[in-house]
Amino acid sequence: MIKVGIIGGSGYTGSELLRLLSMHPKVEVHKVTSRKWRDKPVCSLHKFLNGFYSDLKFISPNLKDLSDCDVVFTAVPHGEAMKYVPELIELGIKVIDLSADYRLKKETYEKVYGRKHEGYIEAAYGLPELFKDEIKKSNLVANPGCYPTGTILAIAPLVKKDLISSVHFDCKSGITGAGAKASDFTHYPNLHEAITPYKVINHRHYPEILEVIEKINPEVKIDVHFTPHVFPGSRGILTTAYIEMKEKISQEELKSLFKKFYSACPFIRIQDEIKLSWVRGSNFCDIAIYSNDRTVICSAIDNLVKGASGQAIQNMNIMFRFDEKEGLYHPPLFP
Amino acid sequence: MIKVGIIGGSGYTGSELLRLLSMHPKVEVHKVTSRKWRDKPVCSLHKFLNGFYSDLKFISPNLKDLSDCDVVFTAVPHGEAMKYVPELIELGIKVIDLSADYRLKKETYEKVYGRKHEGYIEAAYGLPELFKDEIKKSNLVANPGCYPTGTILAIAPLVKKDLISSVHFDCKSGITGAGAKASDFTHYPNLHEAITPYKVINHRHYPEILEVIEKINPEVKIDVHFTPHVFPGSRGILTTAYIEMKEKISQEELKSLFKKFYSACPFIRIQDEIKLSWVRGSNFCDIAIYSNDRTVICSAIDNLVKGASGQAIQNMNIMFRFDEKEGLYHPPLFP
Amino acid sequence: MIKVGIIGGSGYTGSELLRLLSMHPKVEVHKVTSRKWRDKPVCSLHKFLNGFYSDLKFISPNLKDLSDCDVVFTAVPHGEAMKYVPELIELGIKVIDLSADYRLKKETYEKVYGRKHEGYIEAAYGLPELFKDEIKKSNLVANPGCYPTGTILAIAPLVKKDLISSVHFDCKSGITGAGAKASDFTHYPNLHEAITPYKVINHRHYPEILEVIEKINPEVKIDVHFTPHVFPGSRGILTTAYIEMKEKISQEELKSLFKKFYSACPFIRIQDEIKLSWVRGSNFCDIAIYSNDRTVICSAIDNLVKGASGQAIQNMNIMFRFDEKEGLYHPPLFP
Amino acid sequence: MIKVGIIGGSGYTGSELLRLLSMHPKVEVHKVTSRKWRDKPVCSLHKFLNGFYSDLKFISPNLKDLSDCDVVFTAVPHGEAMKYVPELIELGIKVIDLSADYRLKKETYEKVYGRKHEGYIEAAYGLPELFKDEIKKSNLVANPGCYPTGTILAIAPLVKKDLISSVHFDCKSGITGAGAKASDFTHYPNLHEAITPYKVINHRHYPEILEVIEKINPEVKIDVHFTPHVFPGSRGILTTAYIEMKEKISQEELKSLFKKFYSACPFIRIQDEIKLSWVRGSNFCDIAIYSNDRTVICSAIDNLVKGASGQAIQNMNIMFRFDEKEGLYHPPLFP
Repeated sequence: MIKVGIIGGSGYTGSELLRLLSMHPKVEVHKVTSRKWRDKPVCSLHKFLNGFYSDLKFISPNLKDLSDCDVVFTAVPHGEAMKYVPELIELGIKVIDLSADYRLKKETYEKVYGRKHEGYIEAAYGLPELFKDEIKKSNLVANPGCYPTGTILAIAPLVKKDLISSVHFDCKSGITGAGAKASDFTHYPNLHEAITPYKVINHRHYPEILEVIEKINPEVKIDVHFTPHVFPGSRGILTTAYIEMKEKISQEELKSLFKKFYSACPFIRIQDEIKLSWVRGSNFCDIAIYSNDRTVICSAIDNLVKGASGQAIQNMNIMFRFDEKEGLYHPPLFP
Repeated sequence: MIKVGIIGGSGYTGSELLRLLSMHPKVEVHKVTSRKWRDKPVCSLHKFLNGFYSDLKFISPNLKDLSDCDVVFTAVPHGEAMKYVPELIELGIKVIDLSADYRLKKETYEKVYGRKHEGYIEAAYGLPELFKDEIKKSNLVANPGCYPTGTILAIAPLVKKDLISSVHFDCKSGITGAGAKASDFTHYPNLHEAITPYKVINHRHYPEILEVIEKINPEVKIDVHFTPHVFPGSRGILTTAYIEMKEKISQEELKSLFKKFYSACPFIRIQDEIKLSWVRGSNFCDIAIYSNDRTVICSAIDNLVKGASGQAIQNMNIMFRFDEKEGLYHPPLFP
Repeated sequence: MIKVGIIGGSGYTGSELLRLLSMHPKVEVHKVTSRKWRDKPVCSLHKFLNGFYSDLKFISPNLKDLSDCDVVFTAVPHGEAMKYVPELIELGIKVIDLSADYRLKKETYEKVYGRKHEGYIEAAYGLPELFKDEIKKSNLVANPGCYPTGTILAIAPLVKKDLISSVHFDCKSGITGAGAKASDFTHYPNLHEAITPYKVINHRHYPEILEVIEKINPEVKIDVHFTPHVFPGSRGILTTAYIEMKEKISQEELKSLFKKFYSACPFIRIQDEIKLSWVRGSNFCDIAIYSNDRTVICSAIDNLVKGASGQAIQNMNIMFRFDEKEGLYHPPLFP
Repeated sequence: MIKVGIIGGSGYTGSELLRLLSMHPKVEVHKVTSRKWRDKPVCSLHKFLNGFYSDLKFISPNLKDLSDCDVVFTAVPHGEAMKYVPELIELGIKVIDLSADYRLKKETYEKVYGRKHEGYIEAAYGLPELFKDEIKKSNLVANPGCYPTGTILAIAPLVKKDLISSVHFDCKSGITGAGAKASDFTHYPNLHEAITPYKVINHRHYPEILEVIEKINPEVKIDVHFTPHVFPGSRGILTTAYIEMKEKISQEELKSLFKKFYSACPFIRIQDEIKLSWVRGSNFCDIAIYSNDRTVICSAIDNLVKGASGQAIQNMNIMFRFDEKEGLYHPPLFP
């Protein structure tokens, strides 16, 4: 049993970590922080978790209280994680950061997020299907953004082989991606019966997508486009990738190529059709491949699981030499 | 008061015609047909219309019973309309066909729909924003498909000026596009919380989009891509058009160009943002334009109104020299 | 053409008044107020109304600017309306108040809303199906709450005849009843897939229901229970009324009784089945009656129309001797 | 490891058994039947289960193929289960029947379901919170209906003590209760934005509720009312119980009484508030108690888990002397 700490336990990535870790046999959630809810039982906020974690209370985010943890998840907004991460690493604690603070090169981060990075450390990029070795060796893993997870997994095998000249990602996300805090954007009457584009040409995950493509294959030159939408649903990201191939490859060959590339990846499923509800609540990334004159590849993830907390636990499993599937290989909740 | 007949009054385009025509001051719905519901009051099927059409009963679709109509809407599946249209035209009755039977060139139709066309007549293509003169002069108007309406209106000004080299249409439709008949596809648990691609690379509206582009400007060579999705909602089509421009044009110039092009079109609104629920129940097509390095144009329509029955009435208004807005210019139902 | 003013034009009842009044042939919306949005075009906030009210801007709520109105709708929170109403009446302007300020007896109001009433005036209770004569004669109409509208219309014919000994109202409302302001309650992930009871035993509409029953028939003694729920939808209130009858009456007799009672009421429809989507966007109240050993009566309204702004316009029509249906008798938006 | 058979694996209760049993450490799913899908891999139908049961194919429902099972779940429509159950019991196989065939007394069954019962056997009623001892001793367990589960658990402690004179159950169910087969009732546009009463005064679960109350306490005389609704959501049943108490008991006393009554029941949670999404996907039954002048008790279950397949597994755990929570005590999926 390893001891887990969570900094930022009141939001959706925090509660999702708690949900998933309750089913993990090798982990004890030792500390959870929340300034606002400190001294309150975790289940007084997360009432759906009643019956679990009955003795666990939120504490203030003081590093000394977390010093006996084996690993800490930082599930705080970007700009906040950097306040904790360097000291945690110093203390010899492994860290998996769910914020954006360690995903990008320092200069990219400062430009995109418009702030100085005070506490930059090189981190492994926590997309296990592509960077398992780096994750295994690292004490700091930057958990990918939800959109980069869905988009990159839809094209990685083709990027590796330099088969793409251009790609348009049209992404459709459930509203939990906007967090647990109520806003006009998450107001029910503004969402129901309406799928809506937002940040159409300037979303912050775009530079992350570009950097990961470069990490996968520094040689490629791909014209990349990305536009997010929010659809009336809680969880899930559907990515539809419109791909201009450098050479014609049949649908069957493409499927073979993907199956081979992901053969050691238990959470990738190549499906004939795709439906967000077939991955809901699970760590799976489903991929469907369509090709005749045009090549379209779709991926489906649960943004809170494979797009956030589930992937973070997958990274933890790898960092601690557990089976990658440990405590995480559950079926989706359909229908 | 003109006398209107509707062939096929039991489906969604039929009931939507009835809904909209009940607010039209220059029209009397004279006859409505339905084999299955014949002799039953219209409101015994369409209970939401109780209080309207109290004396109207469904009749069998016999042409002699429709012979005193001034105009007939054929709201039947493709392959069915062609059985009625030639005779109706012969009888001197104006026809607006909501099926696919008269939208395409004969040879395209036969290839795409896999059947011989028995009763082909040249029809005006009923997209009033582009082909008003043809509509005015014609006795037979082919009402456009819902996807072609949303996609074409999003790019027509650019096609006219040959400014586009390629376009990817990512379309998201409400489920009413699949009709009033229950199926696995429309089964609630298969849709909720799931936006789903379908007919990814072979939807029948694709050839229609190509032909309309050619109609608008026979000179252009555009690489066109189109993929439909269904989102968890009843009405609406959001089209996100990813456009490769032949020359760089600023966002502001693009907006001016669109505003000018559509200046005489009361149902086109150029908006800063776009939301399907802002057009729900109305005949509006909202368009939003985004451009920096990339150009993205979004359009929003209600698939049953501007994408079907509302547009059909707009065509009727034009054919009968009524004001184009007559009985049709109502605000959307938001929220 | 009468001149209409709206105090409080930024919320849902305000925008719904604007939506409905745009279709009213005898009305001009002359002034709309909003402190927050003053000097801004109405359509810069209510973008779904683009194409209507192009010259109308929000103004500050100063009574002198409203003095040339024939009628003013006060669409502000309770406690706010009383600041405007007495002066407006003084100025000879008719007022229809959509807040709770004039619905209750003064002492009931002060107890239920926990504040002194500064500006109490006797008002007509604006439920036209029951109190048309009072409404006709009054300069101040208190527009009923949404729950009282749905519940009272479901039982009024039985109350009149003193046929009920007890009734349980189980009400299910769409979320727009909670207003246009975002909150935890209206946060999409808190609502989707979840119908939720709230204010289970202490909702403020309960005393209003009791007072209206007394108004209908001061002789009756009915044991009344009321519990509201919110369901995952935008508009609509379904009321399921479980009724203990004083004497056994067959289902058919009950239907006759209701049809007769409401025979002069164009917005009441007695239906065999009931569905919220069959009244959506309309001013109808649908009623379905079930009875064997038990008697259950269901009513369906759109909370923003018959439950608020539509009923307010119905009251206006009556106050100004227009046809009750004028500009308001539109079909619902189904599906 | 016990060997499990499932007769009827293509519907929702079947797929839910498969979902839940994949997480059960003491069980191997040995055989699954489906006439329609026989010889096809289970995951070719239930694509969300890809990655599980990779070698399992549907077989025809022949009893000889099931003879090496330790327990069989019959997840078929009522009228079908009775064709298999007597022989299975004969073969010494334990049976948990998810249909209605063994829930009622023979004469009640024949009256309510309008058919002769060919193969009646006395079964234990599988509501473990009330009848654990019978379940433990029985080879045939009749798994309760979804509505009886939600309603009975909301009042059982009060029935036991004969504290109730009358109760109105207003139940709101997700649409999966209607099964996996598409119909007008499950057609998306008929459900969205509409909570709808159905079988208002004659639902088949009503006699079941009555019989269970009698089982709990044969002495009581309670006036019971029950009306089901379907709300726009996939899973979940909210029961709102309006209770006429025989004597006044405070809210706090009621809570104590419930907590004590259910103290040995790991799947019952007494909550301060209630939300269907807080039990989604889990076997919990949440109960909230409100009382001042009136007493209202709400319960929330997932109809496919505690209302069907989860409860069936809970029964299996008890029959095989496993821990009642074994493989079943997972947190809900919120949001």
